[in-house]
Amino acid sequence: MSSIAPGEAGLPEDAPLAAVRRGALVESVHRGRLAVCDPGDNVLDAVGDPEAYLYARSSAKPFQALPLVLSGAADAFGLTGEALAVACASHSAEEPHLAAVRSILRKAGLTEDDLQSGAHPPLYGPEAAKLLRGGEEPRPIHSNCSGKHAGMLAVCVHEDYETATYREPGHPLQRRILDLITEVCGLREDEVLVAGDNCGVPAFALPLRSFATGLARIATGEGLSEELAGAALRVRDAMCGHPFMVAGTGRFDTELMDSTDLLVKGGAEAVFTAGSQEGWGMALKISDGAERAVRPAALAALSGRGVEVPEAVSTVRGLHGEAVGEIGPLI
Amino acid sequence: MSSIAPGEAGLPEDAPLAAVRRGALVESVHRGRLAVCDPGDNVLDAVGDPEAYLYARSSAKPFQALPLVLSGAADAFGLTGEALAVACASHSAEEPHLAAVRSILRKAGLTEDDLQSGAHPPLYGPEAAKLLRGGEEPRPIHSNCSGKHAGMLAVCVHEDYETATYREPGHPLQRRILDLITEVCGLREDEVLVAGDNCGVPAFALPLRSFATGLARIATGEGLSEELAGAALRVRDAMCGHPFMVAGTGRFDTELMDSTDLLVKGGAEAVFTAGSQEGWGMALKISDGAERAVRPAALAALSGRGVEVPEAVSTVRGLHGEAVGEIGPLI
Repeated sequence: MSSIAPGEAGLPEDAPLAAVRRGALVESVHRGRLAVCDPGDNVLDAVGDPEAYLYARSSAKPFQALPLVLSGAADAFGLTGEALAVACASHSAEEPHLAAVRSILRKAGLTEDDLQSGAHPPLYGPEAAKLLRGGEEPRPIHSNCSGKHAGMLAVCVHEDYETATYREPGHPLQRRILDLITEVCGLREDEVLVAGDNCGVPAFALPLRSFATGLARIATGEGLSEELAGAALRVRDAMCGHPFMVAGTGRFDTELMDSTDLLVKGGAEAVFTAGSQEGWGMALKISDGAERAVRPAALAALSGRGVEVPEAVSTVRGLHGEAVGEIGPLI
Repeated sequence: MSSIAPGEAGLPEDAPLAAVRRGALVESVHRGRLAVCDPGDNVLDAVGDPEAYLYARSSAKPFQALPLVLSGAADAFGLTGEALAVACASHSAEEPHLAAVRSILRKAGLTEDDLQSGAHPPLYGPEAAKLLRGGEEPRPIHSNCSGKHAGMLAVCVHEDYETATYREPGHPLQRRILDLITEVCGLREDEVLVAGDNCGVPAFALPLRSFATGLARIATGEGLSEELAGAALRVRDAMCGHPFMVAGTGRFDTELMDSTDLLVKGGAEAVFTAGSQEGWGMALKISDGAERAVRPAALAALSGRGVEVPEAVSTVRGLHGEAVGEIGPLI
């Protein structure tokens, strides 16, 4: 039987950040690590080693949407703020999300058939149930990433790049995105590691610290060229102006952007990022990838930076509706 | 904002046991702890502190089913091996599971209406989809715990206990179960902590070591009174003889009992237990409660005890069917 890694050695340092309590005991615990940086790449706060890598996953979407603005495609196609926000989204496939994705495709002269986001049931339960009851299979537009893919396709049409191959790491759009992530986060290209994301486009791994710095820059425009700063602030304003489009009903990113002026974007395997116009960015990774730990850990970390946030402790209920425990922060 | 526990202090010692790898990096890591004991309560192997508590959750079901045999209810009602196995199950609500649960209720003169297991969609995806397509709401019989509840009700009918209140910690059946867990695991009653399980019956917390000892005793009958040993071996044989009834299609407990002669029972929040007729029991808890880590961590631990087990590393696939990573053990 093979083992895929050499034990604790080489795993990033972390600390307990959230706990699930039942009765008198902690039943389960979630560890994590985080970095807070200013646009000058200075570490303001950290848990664990800020130089250790993480996969940004969908938290990279605001960066992946930059070419949509920089290329002029967003203007050429007259994309709305909602559409730009959904291009940065991990959306729940509610009707407004699908409408925004369709608007991008239509304006770029494309159809749902051009989307290569892969298919999974809508993240919003009632929409998933509706599809199932109607005997419909989930389509690529229902994927939480379909806005990102539509945005990528719009850039390809505008730039006369091939649309059929837009997911490949060597495609000019994907190379441009890698260059931009590298530039915004202050890294050399060989410092960003590329693997495959679940939706079939490149996934980027980079140091927690560099990612936090990138978020601080996207949220403020500081530390970027004038052109890049303009694009970053436009992406920021689209997301902050349309929190629902970035996630959906009952989702943490939407809740947090609704109640603060932060730029917020989560990613698969329990990545959380935030950018403050006051001059800092935060990147947080729950080590075990558990989504349920993101909310309490992120709220505690944001509270520690003076952000007024919603209550971080949630009640866990049993099948009879009774309280059986709670989940909350440990920091 | 409140914090629900005092940080790392007081959390059980654990170690990295499983990792999710993507590209060149470990993306997420799962820690855990385990104890292996013989029926004499000797610790044969451990990761972390074997005296630290865990909630047994559904891994307690073989213990919770002992009164069904001890009271004579199983014989009086002529319960089959399949029915006894489903009384110990976290089943997937496939048709054979529902038929076995119904057989217990019918033989005890009860109906589905007497079940207080709470309702959730069938764990087996196609059954959940079938209900939804048919416009049916999940009922208590679809709960993975409905066999346990049917078994508890059968004891109540046989013993002339009140059936309406069988879930209450003070009910004579629940007190009897607590006594049995205490006795089998070699604890004093005040050493077993009781909280609420999600299905509304008591959940038991006890030291990892004592739980492993209890499993060794259930699997061998050693260290138990003659009467208790007889009941334990009957429960063991029902489970080992009907692995499908204990879980279901594609489930790890079923897979492992199909391919070994171990008694296997998992529980919510990533608890795994096994008992070997060779004279040991194992209790394992993934600290963060992630079910996906149970299989690789348990297989590695079992392999370490000389059990021939299936391959522990699994491929993680993206939405286009391509391999994007793998999950496997770290020990």
